[in-house]
Amino acid sequence: MKLTIVKSSAVFITLTVLGLSLVRAQDPLPSWNEGSAKQAILEFVKTTTTQGSPQFVSAEERIATFDQDGTLWVEHPMYTQIVYCLERVPALVKARPGLRNKEPFKTVLSGDREAIAKLSTNELVEILAATMTGMSVDEFSAEAKKWITEAKDPRWKRPYTELTYQPMQELLRYLRANGYKTYIVTGGGQDFVRVYAEQTYAIPPEQVVGTAGGTKYGYDKNGRPFLTKEPKLLLNDNNAGKPEGIHLMIGRRPFAAFGNSTGDKQMLEYTKEGDGARLAMIVLHDDAEREYAYGPAQGLPDTKVGMFTQALYDEAKKNGWTVISMKSDWKVIFPFETK
Amino acid sequence: MKLTIVKSSAVFITLTVLGLSLVRAQDPLPSWNEGSAKQAILEFVKTTTTQGSPQFVSAEERIATFDQDGTLWVEHPMYTQIVYCLERVPALVKARPGLRNKEPFKTVLSGDREAIAKLSTNELVEILAATMTGMSVDEFSAEAKKWITEAKDPRWKRPYTELTYQPMQELLRYLRANGYKTYIVTGGGQDFVRVYAEQTYAIPPEQVVGTAGGTKYGYDKNGRPFLTKEPKLLLNDNNAGKPEGIHLMIGRRPFAAFGNSTGDKQMLEYTKEGDGARLAMIVLHDDAEREYAYGPAQGLPDTKVGMFTQALYDEAKKNGWTVISMKSDWKVIFPFETK
Repeated sequence: MKLTIVKSSAVFITLTVLGLSLVRAQDPLPSWNEGSAKQAILEFVKTTTTQGSPQFVSAEERIATFDQDGTLWVEHPMYTQIVYCLERVPALVKARPGLRNKEPFKTVLSGDREAIAKLSTNELVEILAATMTGMSVDEFSAEAKKWITEAKDPRWKRPYTELTYQPMQELLRYLRANGYKTYIVTGGGQDFVRVYAEQTYAIPPEQVVGTAGGTKYGYDKNGRPFLTKEPKLLLNDNNAGKPEGIHLMIGRRPFAAFGNSTGDKQMLEYTKEGDGARLAMIVLHDDAEREYAYGPAQGLPDTKVGMFTQALYDEAKKNGWTVISMKSDWKVIFPFETK
Repeated sequence: MKLTIVKSSAVFITLTVLGLSLVRAQDPLPSWNEGSAKQAILEFVKTTTTQGSPQFVSAEERIATFDQDGTLWVEHPMYTQIVYCLERVPALVKARPGLRNKEPFKTVLSGDREAIAKLSTNELVEILAATMTGMSVDEFSAEAKKWITEAKDPRWKRPYTELTYQPMQELLRYLRANGYKTYIVTGGGQDFVRVYAEQTYAIPPEQVVGTAGGTKYGYDKNGRPFLTKEPKLLLNDNNAGKPEGIHLMIGRRPFAAFGNSTGDKQMLEYTKEGDGARLAMIVLHDDAEREYAYGPAQGLPDTKVGMFTQALYDEAKKNGWTVISMKSDWKVIFPFETK
């Protein structure tokens, strides 16, 4: 009996090995056009994962970090998380009526889109703090999960989680198939992104680093412990906060990092500064037709999100970062286009 | 040629499968005596990892968290990290001579053991902050690594990293072999423990959660980016800080947690409060001969470290935590005893 099991295991594994050989022969990045961006990825993976390569990286050190908004999914015209927080305002005001006539909540309730678009960063931060703290982590998570399942992007009329970039999904899978641990390192709220990252990108909560507030441990009236989300900022995971957050949460310097804006500059610099082969790539939103074209590099006015400035361009060139042009490098943009 | 490779792979894998069957038949916890503690572990693993079990836990949710000092290695009579910081004081004073005649540094320099043992917690915190911050993360890591390689425990005359508990090492491996991701959740400094955790426990830096300070991103005179350790506390990973740190760094509630003192109480409570089968265990230091017996539960005076109080005992009983008696549950204490 035992022999039979072993024999069939061997047959099964033989087939698996044959299967793997077939998969290996296929293009791991079918949605990428041939070009310098695709080439940079393939060469990086080859040089860091081939035994005997002078730039070989041991399996446990293979860390790749990805910005989310604008790098893995659409961030224009407004970060998904901001949309969520604005839509939470009516429920918030219902629970705390004192806020109804207080700015910036009053403007949000007015529904005046132009006025809302003009809210200052400080006012947005006030809205984020009010709508994302003061509840238990389980309550927050349940509410955010419900919203992300139901809400739709106004242009594509699809859930936000379908607006990820197919070429980046292939890249995530390709890196993981080669032993890389893939992390999201986002300026967005860590708890918010964790709600959908596992299902959307196969990235588990413990591999999501983001802007994080403190929590407070306490007990309910039945003596059961729970955590409350506090309005106390622990990590602003933007700009210098990205390498700081990577040190705090991962404790290793990444070998590959991917971003799309000035907020990712320090993460890319920090990654490139390490020894050996390091890959730094930056997504340029230059496809007005299939997605968006924005940022001063396109001669368009600066926006609140996704600033790919001339200075960032210059730094990319100086430091050997590879620019990914959505227009030229990507055959398709979204997963639903491949179905 | 290809066929040959596949064939030999199949033979190799067949041998591996046979090998695994043999290993499976062996006791995964040979240094544990038969008893309620060992039984609790075996039952927990079986019920959470057997397909079809009503308490089955999916692979990605299998998280186990371990306190370090007193749970995975010796913490008595003084935390290893405190020894490190005290021994760093002469070098610190050399670099900053103004501290020579300032307390608490003056007392440390005096070498008067009794006076040193009487330093207050605030004074110890001042020494920790002064010796663990103000340098780059790479400098800190290199210094700590050098020290941990050379320093020896005065009783056993062995490196501290050899004073881990063999039964807990077996437990770590057993949980990992069953798909559990093992984390250290320590009151000790996160950066300090990360220096040796990978080699000592096969736990990578990204799975070490500890008391953490902020870092500051900046550039050296050649424009190269680096991180400096700042004297700013982000997470005090003791007591309520343990579940708060688990939420921050892992984002999932553990299914199993292991501790040894009042500082682990909230982590154990939080773990047990989750749905399904949850394992909470607490190591009792009751072996004066082979290791130490301490804490009020042994009728000994309270110490600065490792408080296993009567209140903790009562909570363990009330909440269904399993107490591990070093004296009765462990056949051997240290890995070097098995060689």
